Amino acid sequence: MASQIPFTRGVPSSDLLPVDAMREAVEQAMRSEPTTALAYATGAGHEGLRAWIAGRHGVEPSRVVCTNGSLQALLFVAEVELAEGPRRVLVEAPTYDRAILVLRRAGADVAGIPVDGDGLDVDALAADIERHGAPALVYVIPNFQNPSGATLAADRRHRLVELARTHGFTIIEDDPYGLLRWRGEMLPSLLELGGESVISMSSFTKTVAPGLRVGYAIAPGELAPRLIRHANDTYISPSMLSQSALAAYCAGGNFEPWVGQARAALQERCAAMCEAVDEHFPAGSTYVRPDGGYFVWVDAPEGVDTTRLLGEATAAGVPYVKGADFFAEPAGERSLRLAFSAVPPDQIHEGIARLGGILSSALATA
Amino acid sequence: MASQIPFTRGVPSSDLLPVDAMREAVEQAMRSEPTTALAYATGAGHEGLRAWIAGRHGVEPSRVVCTNGSLQALLFVAEVELAEGPRRVLVEAPTYDRAILVLRRAGADVAGIPVDGDGLDVDALAADIERHGAPALVYVIPNFQNPSGATLAADRRHRLVELARTHGFTIIEDDPYGLLRWRGEMLPSLLELGGESVISMSSFTKTVAPGLRVGYAIAPGELAPRLIRHANDTYISPSMLSQSALAAYCAGGNFEPWVGQARAALQERCAAMCEAVDEHFPAGSTYVRPDGGYFVWVDAPEGVDTTRLLGEATAAGVPYVKGADFFAEPAGERSLRLAFSAVPPDQIHEGIARLGGILSSALATA
Repeated sequence: MASQIPFTRGVPSSDLLPVDAMREAVEQAMRSEPTTALAYATGAGHEGLRAWIAGRHGVEPSRVVCTNGSLQALLFVAEVELAEGPRRVLVEAPTYDRAILVLRRAGADVAGIPVDGDGLDVDALAADIERHGAPALVYVIPNFQNPSGATLAADRRHRLVELARTHGFTIIEDDPYGLLRWRGEMLPSLLELGGESVISMSSFTKTVAPGLRVGYAIAPGELAPRLIRHANDTYISPSMLSQSALAAYCAGGNFEPWVGQARAALQERCAAMCEAVDEHFPAGSTYVRPDGGYFVWVDAPEGVDTTRLLGEATAAGVPYVKGADFFAEPAGERSLRLAFSAVPPDQIHEGIARLGGILSSALATA
Repeated sequence: MASQIPFTRGVPSSDLLPVDAMREAVEQAMRSEPTTALAYATGAGHEGLRAWIAGRHGVEPSRVVCTNGSLQALLFVAEVELAEGPRRVLVEAPTYDRAILVLRRAGADVAGIPVDGDGLDVDALAADIERHGAPALVYVIPNFQNPSGATLAADRRHRLVELARTHGFTIIEDDPYGLLRWRGEMLPSLLELGGESVISMSSFTKTVAPGLRVGYAIAPGELAPRLIRHANDTYISPSMLSQSALAAYCAGGNFEPWVGQARAALQERCAAMCEAVDEHFPAGSTYVRPDGGYFVWVDAPEGVDTTRLLGEATAAGVPYVKGADFFAEPAGERSLRLAFSAVPPDQIHEGIARLGGILSSALATA
């Protein structure tokens, strides 16, 4: 059987987990605030962690809601925001597959707006609003988007925020990857530009460790208490042991150095993947070279059907996520998402060579 | 201002948290399985913890779904079970207020069946089924029920399970308090009696620590994978740091001894509360003396309105939860729930004396 080199999941590999620093942070938390770590909190989570996050984003701590991962934050936001009134939600096409799923679960009528190399096509968004009226929400992943790898250009950020203000919709900015940038300058967040028109969310999954399950939303002042109550009515509070440990980790100055280390490792993996795709994928394959993050999104040439080929790739030990999964409407049949985050560089070369062979054979017999 | 002696929340006081043992367990987890504690798992949670829970209940580990607290488990069950088909759900009257809330959120049409000193009135349930047909779900807290303190009698357990089998509905058994029994014999669980007719859930909130946020559901073999997928699509996985620490805690033999200690403390607090209510509450007040758990539920005499008096009691530093909160339909105006779990015995006496005075004055002027 072929060795397993999965390109499926956007997770950090175990060598990218800050085991030693987190061990110390947990011990520190259990020494300095055992009752906080072991008792209930409110639905908003750990006060110290909220304050730390608020400080980084320059907002009031009362606007920060720490959740059991950021997907849960998105579900809370959708459930609260869509409880009454219009339910049309626009997302990028392609976008994070699970986001489509939780938005629909909250009753959203989800439609996609195209993405290109500069992120969400804001002209297409404006045209959609012209045609259908303002949506309730627009869900955007502005940096190294999942799955496309594209980053929303600065001028488009300004336009997007302006559209939100003019038409009175709310932007959900989902930014788990923004700090994992190894090329180019950090762009202003939608939260910075759009203030109360924006609900901004992120997570410590990619910057610290997924198993802690700590995500957060920064909500407008009026929405935050409703989100907190909703969280409280769902699970009382998130894990306080996790949040207390994470608060100690951040207070101990571990956050930035580790992000730097993760960023360097990811850059190397991304370079390996782009090089391998250039070398081994069939001519005519295209992708946006990401400036950070976890993913390379490849559009294969006409004649490749990534849904049909997934079984063969999986059997060969090199599964990917098929393009069709990332669209609200049928699309993406020639595309595939490759996560480089969890695979060491030498294995990336081997796996991409194997996968390129499968795509090339399919094309040859098409 | 009067000292604060709140009888509101069903939480353990901080002296009932196993701080030292949990500190060791967390360190143990971070030494022996740091990658498990810091990485994603499936929506089912920690494999070792699932196995430990399965062993205690005599079921296959694959049927155990560990969640971010058991309220979240109830929401998952309701969302999956009520997604299609009938939505009538019967609960005890009174029952846990947040359970009514999450059942309704999942689309349930909730109706109450009376509770007496022997728990759910199974004759009344049978009559309701006669009248309205079988419900989709019947939600029951069999031991030291929240809020009534009553325990479902053995013969009623058999009848209930028989009704479920005859009429094809599913029982949700919510049992967070069962191990906190200090009087009488442990009765067979509904899961033991009813097998696949029962979804049984519990939590480590009352037996270890709330801040870990670890609850679980034991589901029929066919349902478990659907719950796990649903959990996965909600928050990927629960906090693995919490579950890994808890698994180490349980494997280290800490579980039973600490439950024994908590049980003894609760028994003392319960005795103090019953004694104080006997002494200070107006004549004609009645309650079921609980054999375990966290709560005493008092029915005050005619003329007392616990909704109206709550403001005064809160101002006097002795808030309770008003009876009306625990019913799906309007009811409970003479009742109140008193949690003794978080208050030391001497303060229980002082607080109940104060509260008794408020009730007595209200009666005198009624």
